[in-house]
Amino acid sequence: MKLVIGDKFNSSWSMRPWVLLKHFGIPFEETLIRLSHPDTKSKILEVSPSGKVPCLVTDAGEAVWESLAIVETIAEMHPGHAMWPRDAAARARARSISAEMHAGFADLRQHMPMEITMHAPGAGATPGALANIARIEAIWAECLAKSGGPFLFGEFGIADAMFAPVVMRFNSYEPELSETSRAYAKRITELPAVAAWIDGAREEAR
Amino acid sequence: MKLVIGDKFNSSWSMRPWVLLKHFGIPFEETLIRLSHPDTKSKILEVSPSGKVPCLVTDAGEAVWESLAIVETIAEMHPGHAMWPRDAAARARARSISAEMHAGFADLRQHMPMEITMHAPGAGATPGALANIARIEAIWAECLAKSGGPFLFGEFGIADAMFAPVVMRFNSYEPELSETSRAYAKRITELPAVAAWIDGAREEAR
Repeated sequence: MKLVIGDKFNSSWSMRPWVLLKHFGIPFEETLIRLSHPDTKSKILEVSPSGKVPCLVTDAGEAVWESLAIVETIAEMHPGHAMWPRDAAARARARSISAEMHAGFADLRQHMPMEITMHAPGAGATPGALANIARIEAIWAECLAKSGGPFLFGEFGIADAMFAPVVMRFNSYEPELSETSRAYAKRITELPAVAAWIDGAREEAR
Repeated sequence: MKLVIGDKFNSSWSMRPWVLLKHFGIPFEETLIRLSHPDTKSKILEVSPSGKVPCLVTDAGEAVWESLAIVETIAEMHPGHAMWPRDAAARARARSISAEMHAGFADLRQHMPMEITMHAPGAGATPGALANIARIEAIWAECLAKSGGPFLFGEFGIADAMFAPVVMRFNSYEPELSETSRAYAKRITELPAVAAWIDGAREEAR
């Protein structure tokens, strides 16, 4: 199985399936395509019909693209791991917030782009980005209260992986956050799979 | 089970789970919230934590939001219906194009908004919208060639429901399309569940 990703310092979409696979110890081959090169588009199109990363290429040679479709497919391939919560109602909620993350929060993405090696407290704090952050904090608070933590639905899973790039943005731009959000962001940052991605991003900057 | 939706003439997101439920004959109660009223936001927030429609409320009173999460949840609840393709590789592809639809095609959405009762051939044909349309035509052509049709993965399913609002846009703005795309769009438009949604949209305009 091969996962085609973009640069680790800023390909927020790529981070999600990569962290999920690493966390659950699922072996995969990594192919990294630098995103701002003249031949980026043609290189991606060789593997990913949508022209975007990430793209999972299965052992049968089938391309699976879009981070949410990739994580659903990985979860199906590995039913022994509780990547989605085992409880049906919790799973429906995990899918709701994951899809909300997948398609939403445009202001946060635009004004606080993920750039892991950047440290710019206060930057990008537009009203729209702050409204996005408020919604994210509400999601985290509700999930953590319902599950008891330490992750959104108890143990680390897909929903946490979907929000991991948001944590990277929070680390860079340091918006004001509740105690609950700060503690959750710290747990995500310190998760070995996430720390490994961050190390990779720092390597790129060297 | 209750499905909370917006106006049928223009709530493209609401159309997807509604058409899916209707097509598979799954009983549900419909709650329609008009989207441009002063109390729209507060009415939606009473049922949907994200403040957006559609929202499914299960018999247990659990809210499930975002069209993609709703259709995944419906598919899980009704394993007897092949809402996703039964074949794993086809299912992964169906999820890829559904997630691509869920999060992408921003130009098409902006410049050719779904307004079912509108007929404005040629309007909104910006370069970005036309590029989106070219990608959609490529997706349809590839899926129909692989499955043999008549729908994207053989019988009508979630992937078709995800693209149904695009067909409504094509009917309104009539961009130039391949023969294959036109025939597929006609099949979608004539599907009884889609025709019922269109009838509802026309009723609203009266």
